[in-house]
Amino acid sequence: MQRFKCIVTYDGTHFAGYQVQPNKRTVQGELERALKKLHKGEDIRVTASGRTDAGVHARGQVIHFDSPLNIPLEKWEIALNSLLPDDVAVIGAARAAEDFHVRFDAKGKEYRYFVHLSSRRDPFKRHYAYQFPYALNIDSIKKAAAGLVGTHDFTSFCSAKTEVEDKVREIQEIEVVEEGDMLTFRFKGTGFLYNMVRILVGTLLEVGSGERDADSMPAIIEEKNRSAAGKTAPPQGLYLWKVFY
Amino acid sequence: MQRFKCIVTYDGTHFAGYQVQPNKRTVQGELERALKKLHKGEDIRVTASGRTDAGVHARGQVIHFDSPLNIPLEKWEIALNSLLPDDVAVIGAARAAEDFHVRFDAKGKEYRYFVHLSSRRDPFKRHYAYQFPYALNIDSIKKAAAGLVGTHDFTSFCSAKTEVEDKVREIQEIEVVEEGDMLTFRFKGTGFLYNMVRILVGTLLEVGSGERDADSMPAIIEEKNRSAAGKTAPPQGLYLWKVFY
Repeated sequence: MQRFKCIVTYDGTHFAGYQVQPNKRTVQGELERALKKLHKGEDIRVTASGRTDAGVHARGQVIHFDSPLNIPLEKWEIALNSLLPDDVAVIGAARAAEDFHVRFDAKGKEYRYFVHLSSRRDPFKRHYAYQFPYALNIDSIKKAAAGLVGTHDFTSFCSAKTEVEDKVREIQEIEVVEEGDMLTFRFKGTGFLYNMVRILVGTLLEVGSGERDADSMPAIIEEKNRSAAGKTAPPQGLYLWKVFY
Repeated sequence: MQRFKCIVTYDGTHFAGYQVQPNKRTVQGELERALKKLHKGEDIRVTASGRTDAGVHARGQVIHFDSPLNIPLEKWEIALNSLLPDDVAVIGAARAAEDFHVRFDAKGKEYRYFVHLSSRRDPFKRHYAYQFPYALNIDSIKKAAAGLVGTHDFTSFCSAKTEVEDKVREIQEIEVVEEGDMLTFRFKGTGFLYNMVRILVGTLLEVGSGERDADSMPAIIEEKNRSAAGKTAPPQGLYLWKVFY
């Protein structure tokens, strides 16, 4: 058996999320279906760096799986892509050590969130950015973002539905970039809780709209209560951009 | 009655084309459905600058229609967009003279065609560009394009299915722009025949691949025979970009 590590990109629009669910179309389901075909009916289990929700995209999701097949490395990408539907693609394959684990060995992740600053709907952006029609104070957003960087208990920024107990995470960097009518948030951290990036963005947009103070982030973190933070921004603006090892 | 002229943008992916067809989802069908609602059940006929095929997009389609409604001009866009599905949007409305005709009064059109130069599938571009994995000589394409500009009988570059008799059209400009992994063709002309831009692109890509000579365009035009030109490039790369009045 050989362990393989692949980088996977997908348009999350027509998926019920990454993780396998009965009777739903999922990214994991499509990857395992393709691997099963390649292995002539044998079930191959895929492990990912983490789940993504319905409608959330990935530019650099990473997966691992074990295979007895003796296919040259450069053929893995071609073979898998020929079996995958057109909204998911493998963009890199490598051999990995047998004890490599795509989730436990991840050193950090980058997520990006795209906000389309416009009062006008754009049919070409509807699945790929969150349309936000109200005026924003970008300087306030940047100031508030600085108050989120660091190692904190992010309970306030985590869906109450989570089962994870330890909610301490480190956000290493938040970049806020305005280019034309697109506002991009780039989050780098050691790990992110369930819905964390979307709640961070929702809260920062409330700061930008003047509904919250730019210096209120430490107090929200301190409360350790989901209701202290802002709304969860919608999924279509979110991209799992890169996983660091 | 007042005649209105609107600019319309749509993602053609999930439409069976612009023009109404029985039991198919079309852009015209959605526009007329929205207008009928706005007019409390009265049928309002929409006329467009031209049709687009299934999968073809528009950034600047133009339509006209007549309405007895006394809605302030700035409210038309908002009212229609609230009734339209999210893959089609009105991005401008103006009053027009009662004898204005969106097709007959058009002085020219711009189409753009996007080619994604990559051997790798990109799930985010699959509906919005034509993935082309082979090497291209861009200078040959530019040279061939120059041989297409001017007033010609474009029978060779027109679907044999057309009913139009006069196939003389003027191409005013063809720009070929390579930026990163995206090759963009910009066509400006007085008018375009059925499938003409897609056949022009298909033929120019055959020049770029070395299957045809860069100086062979005048001979293809001369033949006045569809089979003399190249393949019809697929619809998803094509955008009706602008209509000139």
